[in-house]
Amino acid sequence: MALKKSPFDELSEYSKEITIWHTLSNILEWDQDTYMPEGAIDFRSLQSSLVTSHTHKLRVGAKFKKLLSALINLENGTILDPTLSLAQKAALNEWRRDYLKATKLPSSFVKNFAAIATKASSAWSQARKESNFKMFAPHLEKIVKFNQKKAAYLGFQESPYDALLDLYEPDSTVAKLTPLFDSLKNGLKELLLKIKSKPPVDTSFLKHDFDSAKQIEFGKMLLHAMGFKSETSRLDLTSHPFCTTMHPTDVRMTTRIHQDDVMSNIFSVLHEGGHGLYGKNLPVEYFGTPLGEQVSLGIDESQSRFWETRIGRSRPFWERFLPDLKKAFPQISEISLDSFYAAINTVTPSFIRVEADEVTYTLHIILRFELEKMLMEGTLKVKEVPEVWNQKMEELLGIRPPKDALGCLQDIHWSLGFMGYFPTYALGNIYAAQFFEKFASDNPDWEHKLAQGNLAFIQEWLKTHIHQWGRQYSPHELIEKVTGKPLSEKPYLNYLTSKYQ
Amino acid sequence: MALKKSPFDELSEYSKEITIWHTLSNILEWDQDTYMPEGAIDFRSLQSSLVTSHTHKLRVGAKFKKLLSALINLENGTILDPTLSLAQKAALNEWRRDYLKATKLPSSFVKNFAAIATKASSAWSQARKESNFKMFAPHLEKIVKFNQKKAAYLGFQESPYDALLDLYEPDSTVAKLTPLFDSLKNGLKELLLKIKSKPPVDTSFLKHDFDSAKQIEFGKMLLHAMGFKSETSRLDLTSHPFCTTMHPTDVRMTTRIHQDDVMSNIFSVLHEGGHGLYGKNLPVEYFGTPLGEQVSLGIDESQSRFWETRIGRSRPFWERFLPDLKKAFPQISEISLDSFYAAINTVTPSFIRVEADEVTYTLHIILRFELEKMLMEGTLKVKEVPEVWNQKMEELLGIRPPKDALGCLQDIHWSLGFMGYFPTYALGNIYAAQFFEKFASDNPDWEHKLAQGNLAFIQEWLKTHIHQWGRQYSPHELIEKVTGKPLSEKPYLNYLTSKYQ
Repeated sequence: MALKKSPFDELSEYSKEITIWHTLSNILEWDQDTYMPEGAIDFRSLQSSLVTSHTHKLRVGAKFKKLLSALINLENGTILDPTLSLAQKAALNEWRRDYLKATKLPSSFVKNFAAIATKASSAWSQARKESNFKMFAPHLEKIVKFNQKKAAYLGFQESPYDALLDLYEPDSTVAKLTPLFDSLKNGLKELLLKIKSKPPVDTSFLKHDFDSAKQIEFGKMLLHAMGFKSETSRLDLTSHPFCTTMHPTDVRMTTRIHQDDVMSNIFSVLHEGGHGLYGKNLPVEYFGTPLGEQVSLGIDESQSRFWETRIGRSRPFWERFLPDLKKAFPQISEISLDSFYAAINTVTPSFIRVEADEVTYTLHIILRFELEKMLMEGTLKVKEVPEVWNQKMEELLGIRPPKDALGCLQDIHWSLGFMGYFPTYALGNIYAAQFFEKFASDNPDWEHKLAQGNLAFIQEWLKTHIHQWGRQYSPHELIEKVTGKPLSEKPYLNYLTSKYQ
Repeated sequence: MALKKSPFDELSEYSKEITIWHTLSNILEWDQDTYMPEGAIDFRSLQSSLVTSHTHKLRVGAKFKKLLSALINLENGTILDPTLSLAQKAALNEWRRDYLKATKLPSSFVKNFAAIATKASSAWSQARKESNFKMFAPHLEKIVKFNQKKAAYLGFQESPYDALLDLYEPDSTVAKLTPLFDSLKNGLKELLLKIKSKPPVDTSFLKHDFDSAKQIEFGKMLLHAMGFKSETSRLDLTSHPFCTTMHPTDVRMTTRIHQDDVMSNIFSVLHEGGHGLYGKNLPVEYFGTPLGEQVSLGIDESQSRFWETRIGRSRPFWERFLPDLKKAFPQISEISLDSFYAAINTVTPSFIRVEADEVTYTLHIILRFELEKMLMEGTLKVKEVPEVWNQKMEELLGIRPPKDALGCLQDIHWSLGFMGYFPTYALGNIYAAQFFEKFASDNPDWEHKLAQGNLAFIQEWLKTHIHQWGRQYSPHELIEKVTGKPLSEKPYLNYLTSKYQ
């Protein structure tokens, strides 16, 4: 006689099926960015939108609702079967959270918003090319209005911006982030002033002609050292690096090669590799349920920043890998570890966020956080954006963009409809620093081990403390569980201060 | 006021949606064979089977049935709207044909058959490795029984084999194919005897070390010359060459490189390119309907064989491209066009079908046709297969396989459950020759043009006469429409005889 499946297993299985549907969107996107012939783009959108809308239908459909409501009260969140484990209860809370989010937005609203974003992103692209904010302004106005409407659908306590923040990073609110970001802002501004007073570092040797094929080989070697196997992962080239994890056995990272810059590829690979290890190490037995998923964008970003900045910009890492880099690129064979380390850690205020260093990056994000908050709360008009952007750049970084293409027109995010997304980048840095502090105290000899070329213990630590839990804990719970302390910007500020002072 | 869509347009749109679902299976298969990390194979089967079963459900579902039955009587095929165009009526007939085929097999049968094939193909793989037919025999017995059951479900007039033949090549029956194949068998056997009496040709210069990257470059150049653009097509490497056309704007071909054989890649590229041009030239405005699909496997194969054998093994083609080949591979720069042409057109009976030359290839297929017919009609027992296979090899090719791995265990098809598929390969050759006869009479200067490097007129002719029609005509109707004559093996036999005598 076959055993009857438990209601929890039934829900898990159906959730897994929906997740598999979602991975079809992943493969379509990955293929579009890597190998798809460009002329196929119109047909690709037909394929993608068919899969996306099918997946959404299943997520908000009657079958999922029935399976979920048998285990948790959708209205008030009461778990209906008290014998379930803590992990199972956590999973139910997350499923409910996702379900309520997905059902709160009417599908006509989602459709209209998508149509507006399509037009906006094409207008943005042209506006940036011509550095003409006026071309983008009417679209941004609609985007802001739709996001305000979205916040109203989703619901919020204090600021409409809260509804969006929570969408990308659970637990985030203006009230929680503001003191964190204010303290960071002051600390980083102060640090920046001190750094500016020092003599400039020579970085010119990093800007030679570096063979593309050898750069890719070096990237693959690094991924291997981080713990990836070619049987379950890939590295490809795209114009913007990203990581797609369809399943712990299918992790795909991409990088970009600048022939005149040897570090761009390396930091991309370490960054995407950090995301990839998270995906690879999620518990495969819970695949398709919240217990097999990344906690949040911010925690995911903490993993990429952990590898990119804390490991990849550290001295012991290059004690180990600089000889290999010199072997691959004899043109830098004369460079000392000291000069190399200094060169890859220079701090220089610049206009473009994605090119920013460790110290200024978060200031770029804080600027966007403050602008988005004002836009969402109606205290800033769209037409005022360029002027306020430039003022804040002067205030935070001491430089003023000469044109909007180098200022408020540089990011694609708003044009795609995303507001509230940027803060997850800053949170990634903050989380990473707090995790790293604990990692270093758990591994007092980490620098020695790393310099010896042992990287396995890093992955192991991240897996044990973060990856294995999936979404069992919220971002803030996870931080407390791992580090024993509530979320704080202090470790991040301490790290940068001690590194750069 | 919006115009109401016609019932035909509604059906077309829904059919297009189902086709887009099907292209998701295409991308999953293409990715699996090209770039997917091999450790992802188990997860990939979950993705694939989800898409396949969803697509099947839509094809046999109530919505499709309702839309189709509004236009054609599913029982007797009467078209219900006499004002439709001939093309539309043809489309309805094909939709009905597909629908009846898809609904005749109970889904439990399809599932069980798939499970049996999974086990059979893994057993076959091991049996071939050990050249041990007994390991595969019990699986083949099940495959035959299931195919007999399948034939019963599908229905047939004379032979159960007819039901399978018609599945892969509409209009095909044992009664129609037998005289065709018998005549070919006699003609080819006779021709082979004559060829064998001639002195052997030197082919050793084709078997040097040829750089892989240069081989791929040469393949891409040939595809470009055939009429492909990189905006809408690709060439990648796989262990078995194939072509996947997801849409006329997304045609993906693959090739395989043998570093010690310069021609294997070239003939693969021309072959898959022939399939690809067909896909590329189907009328995009009818995408997703029968009018935007390839007629049949045999007609599709005729396109690949047209390019591979009639163009790619012709003298004028190499008049044009041999200088390029010599430039890419200086190690053959001393070879004359005569020696080269002779070397790429040698005929030698060999055990393995996929390595066979133009003359013996069809004999390999006829052998399989005769065996499959007997198996399906119950006049041959599975355990007798090796002996009868070897006898027929002696009779047809004059050689006897020393072991079953070089005989009845060489093909994967049976293990996957496919019987009745092989004949489409021979039909491809027959169709190609009949098309080519007409093409040459329409273009009396084809050799001159081709030697000049003009290939556009070839694609144009194929597009006008074959590709543009989609499935508006059945294979036999198309042959008659294009050539003015019924299907005949004569052009194929005449071509080979005049070439090799």
